[in-house]
Amino acid sequence: MANKPSIPKGMRDFSQQETAERNYIFDTIKSVFRTFGYAQIETPSMENLSTLLGKYGDEGDKLLFRVLNSGDPFTGTDFESFRGEDGAFNAPLLSKHLCDKGLRYDLTVPFARYVVQHQNEISFPFKRFQIQPVWRADRPQKGRYREFYQCDVDVIGSRSQLNELELVQIVDKVFALLDVRVALKINNRKVLTGLAEICGAPDKVVDITVAIDKLDKVGLDAVKEEMSGKGLSDSAVAVVEQILALSGTVQEKIAAMRALFGGASASGISSQTGLAGLDELEELFTLIDAAGVAVSTDLDLSLARGLNYYTCAIFEVKALDWQIGSICGGGRYDNLTGIFGLPDMSGVGISFGADRIYDVLKGLDKFPAGLRSTTTLLFANMGEAEVRYVLPVAAALRAEGVAVEIYPESSKLKKQFDYADRKSIPFLSITGADEAAAGTVQIKNLATGEQKIFDKTDIAGIKALLQL
Amino acid sequence: MANKPSIPKGMRDFSQQETAERNYIFDTIKSVFRTFGYAQIETPSMENLSTLLGKYGDEGDKLLFRVLNSGDPFTGTDFESFRGEDGAFNAPLLSKHLCDKGLRYDLTVPFARYVVQHQNEISFPFKRFQIQPVWRADRPQKGRYREFYQCDVDVIGSRSQLNELELVQIVDKVFALLDVRVALKINNRKVLTGLAEICGAPDKVVDITVAIDKLDKVGLDAVKEEMSGKGLSDSAVAVVEQILALSGTVQEKIAAMRALFGGASASGISSQTGLAGLDELEELFTLIDAAGVAVSTDLDLSLARGLNYYTCAIFEVKALDWQIGSICGGGRYDNLTGIFGLPDMSGVGISFGADRIYDVLKGLDKFPAGLRSTTTLLFANMGEAEVRYVLPVAAALRAEGVAVEIYPESSKLKKQFDYADRKSIPFLSITGADEAAAGTVQIKNLATGEQKIFDKTDIAGIKALLQL
Repeated sequence: MANKPSIPKGMRDFSQQETAERNYIFDTIKSVFRTFGYAQIETPSMENLSTLLGKYGDEGDKLLFRVLNSGDPFTGTDFESFRGEDGAFNAPLLSKHLCDKGLRYDLTVPFARYVVQHQNEISFPFKRFQIQPVWRADRPQKGRYREFYQCDVDVIGSRSQLNELELVQIVDKVFALLDVRVALKINNRKVLTGLAEICGAPDKVVDITVAIDKLDKVGLDAVKEEMSGKGLSDSAVAVVEQILALSGTVQEKIAAMRALFGGASASGISSQTGLAGLDELEELFTLIDAAGVAVSTDLDLSLARGLNYYTCAIFEVKALDWQIGSICGGGRYDNLTGIFGLPDMSGVGISFGADRIYDVLKGLDKFPAGLRSTTTLLFANMGEAEVRYVLPVAAALRAEGVAVEIYPESSKLKKQFDYADRKSIPFLSITGADEAAAGTVQIKNLATGEQKIFDKTDIAGIKALLQL
Repeated sequence: MANKPSIPKGMRDFSQQETAERNYIFDTIKSVFRTFGYAQIETPSMENLSTLLGKYGDEGDKLLFRVLNSGDPFTGTDFESFRGEDGAFNAPLLSKHLCDKGLRYDLTVPFARYVVQHQNEISFPFKRFQIQPVWRADRPQKGRYREFYQCDVDVIGSRSQLNELELVQIVDKVFALLDVRVALKINNRKVLTGLAEICGAPDKVVDITVAIDKLDKVGLDAVKEEMSGKGLSDSAVAVVEQILALSGTVQEKIAAMRALFGGASASGISSQTGLAGLDELEELFTLIDAAGVAVSTDLDLSLARGLNYYTCAIFEVKALDWQIGSICGGGRYDNLTGIFGLPDMSGVGISFGADRIYDVLKGLDKFPAGLRSTTTLLFANMGEAEVRYVLPVAAALRAEGVAVEIYPESSKLKKQFDYADRKSIPFLSITGADEAAAGTVQIKNLATGEQKIFDKTDIAGIKALLQL
C-alpha cells in the first residue's frame, strides 16, 4: 500500500495526550454526577432504525448513519421498483430496505427507548447518566465532527423542581472543578407559549421564538423585521419588544412578566400558561438561592433552544472567557417516553458537550499539568544481569501503584535519556553492576539533577522520593 | 407505537448495576496498564473499508458492519451491472460501491493504521492501551455479541523479551486484583514452524497446528487422524506425537525440544527456526523467574492461537475455576504495520476479553459488594421548608465527595423508604421541622436502625458516620 492510511472525514484519532485530557473532562463530570446519586448506563451503538427515524425531524433522518444489513441484503431486491415518479431512486425508501439499523444520533432517544423497554426493572424516579459517542453525517467543519461524545444526565419520573435545581448545582460544580467561568441561562417553554398567546398569535410560538433566539446575534431591529416577515402584526411585535426590553433582577423580570401575562400588555390578552411558567421559574430561582450556588444564573426570556422538545425549564451554559457557543444545555420534556408508548413520564436533563468543553479548556490553558506524564520512574537498561536485578524493585513499586518502566533494550544511555525526556518521565534510575553488587538502587530527579541511593528493599523510601 | 421497543439482536443495554460491574473490570485493567507506563489512545468507530478489508480473511470481511454512504449513495448506480455470471448480485462489490466505511472489527488493525499514520508524532517504543467496543456481524449466541469491548495493550518498536515479560506481569496483576485464578500458557510460533520442519512438512504448519490446537478438546487419536487426513506421513505424525507427549518442567520440555530440533527426532531433520524459538522461550521463562510472578505459567507446545498473525511469542489465559475458553490472549507480530507501508515494526500485545471476564466474575461471585450502591445518604423530603433547610447540608456533603440525594417529592415516608431500599442506600435522614428549629440533622443507619443527631454544620461528623 503506497498511500499513507487515513480515517474517514469528520472522525478523529485521539493521542495519548488528548485521551488523558478528554478523560480528565469525563472523570470530572462523572464524579459530580455521582455525588448527586446519578448512576451510569450504556446503550448499544446501533439502534433499530424504527427507533431513530422521525425523532429528529426530516433533516435529522438524513443525518443518520445507516448500517447495511449483514449477510446479503441485495438478493431478491428489485431496485427498479424503488424509483420515484421522477425516475430517480427514492433514497429514504431504498436505504430503509437495505438497512434495519442506524448509529445512535443522540443519547436522549436511546434513553427514552431504554426506560420504556426496561420500565419493570427500573425504580422511579430514575437518575441516570450516560457518556457515549454519537454519530451524525453532518458536513464536517471546525469544531463539528461526525463522531463526538455526549455526557447526558437525566432524571425521569418526577415533576419536582428540585430536579431542575440539582442540574443547576451540577453545572455549578462541574465548571467550578474545571475552573471555567460560565453563565447559566434559564427560561421556561411555558413562558414562550404565553408570549405567543399575549401577542395574539398562539400558533406562531415557533416563529416568535426562532426570531427572538437570534437577538444576541442580529440585534432587535432584525428580530422585529423577521417577526413581521412571518406575518406577526405590529401590535404583536410591540408586545415582544416590550418583553425583550425587560431588565433588572430575576425577581423584577418575573414580576414584570406576571403583570404582562395578567393582561397588562399592549394586547390586553392574558395567559394562564405563561403564568404557570413564571410560577415554575420563581420556585426554581428560590431553590437556587436557598441552595447557594456560585455560578452566575439568569432568566433569559429569549432562550429557546430545543423548542420542539422541551415543555418546561430550558437551560443553556456558555463560557464567559472563551467564545464557542453553548457548551451545555437541556431542559424538561413532559412526555419523553410517549413516542415509545409510555405516556406521562416527565423527565429533565442536561447534556455536556465534551468536545466544546475540551476546546474551552485548551483555549484557556486550563488542563492540569500532571495529565501528560504517565510514567514516574524509568529504569535504564544497563544489560541483562542489571535488568534482572531491578525487576523485583520495579515490581514492588508497581504493587504500590507507582507507574514504572524498564527500558526494553540495552541501548546507549543517550537514547534512553531521550526516551525519558520525550515522555516527560521525571525520574530515571541508572542502576548498574556497582549498585547491584552493593544491593542498592540509584535514582535521579531529571528536573533538578539530584541523585539519591536507596537500599533495594527500601520501597517506602523510593516511593516517598517519587511523590515529591 | 404499540410494540415495546427493542434493540438489534446481538446488542445489549447495560443497566446501572452492570455498568458499575463492567467499569470495575475496565478500571482494574487500566490501573495495571498504567503502572507499566502504557497510556490510552482512542481511534474512531468507523474506519475506511480499505483499511479493514482483507485483514481478517474472507470470513472476517463478511463479518464487517458496513456503513451506508451518507447523502444519496444510489443515484447513478447501475445495479444490473453488479450482477455476476450466475445472475445474482455480487454482494461484496455492490457493498463496496455503496459503503466506503465500516465499523471497527478489532483494535489491532486500527492500532497498526494509527501507528503508520502518526509515526512522526510517536516516540518508539510506543506503549499504548485501548479500550473500545468492536463490532462483528457474527451469529449471536450465548456469550457472543455483535458489539463487545476489547481491552488491548501493546508495545511496538522493540524486539526485547522484556516486553513479553511485562505482558505476563500485567496478566498476573490484573487477575490477582480481580481475584480470579488463571493459568497462562505460552508458546512460540517459531517452535510451531520448527515442528512442521522436523516433520518434513514445512508447508503444512497450518494443518499441523490447527490439528494439535484441538488436543484438549478431542484427544490425541482424533488429532492424529486429522493430521493423516491432511496428508501428513506416518513418520510426521509420529514426530508430533513425540512432542505432544513431552512433560516435566518448562526447562525439561525446552531441553527435550532442543534435542529434537537438533536432529534427534524420528525424522532426523533439524530446525534452526525451532531452536531460535526455544531460545526466546528460555529467555522469557528466565525473566519470569527473575521477576517473580504469582500466576501459573506453563509452556504449551500445542498452543497455536492467531496463527496467521503471530510470529514469535503466543499467549493464552484461561480461568481455572470457571469454564469459558480463553479470557485473554496475544502474542508478537513481527511486521504489524507492514500492511500499511511501514515495514520492520515488531510489536507484542495482549487483549483482555471484558465480556468473558465479566461472566467469570459473575459466575464466581467475585464482584466487590460496594459496587452497587451509588448513593450514601438520602434526605427524605419532609416538605418545602424542610428541603430548603437541608439543601446547604447536602451541598456541603457533596463538596466532600459524598453521594447525597434529596427525595424530589414530598411523598409518603413509606414510598421514600422504599426508594432508599431499592437503591440500597445505606443512610436516611428524616430531618423535619423540629430538627430545622434546633439547627440539627438526624441520620439513620438503615442496616442497624441506629439514629444519630448532628449539628447542621458538623459536616465532618456526618461524613465520619457515613464512612463507617
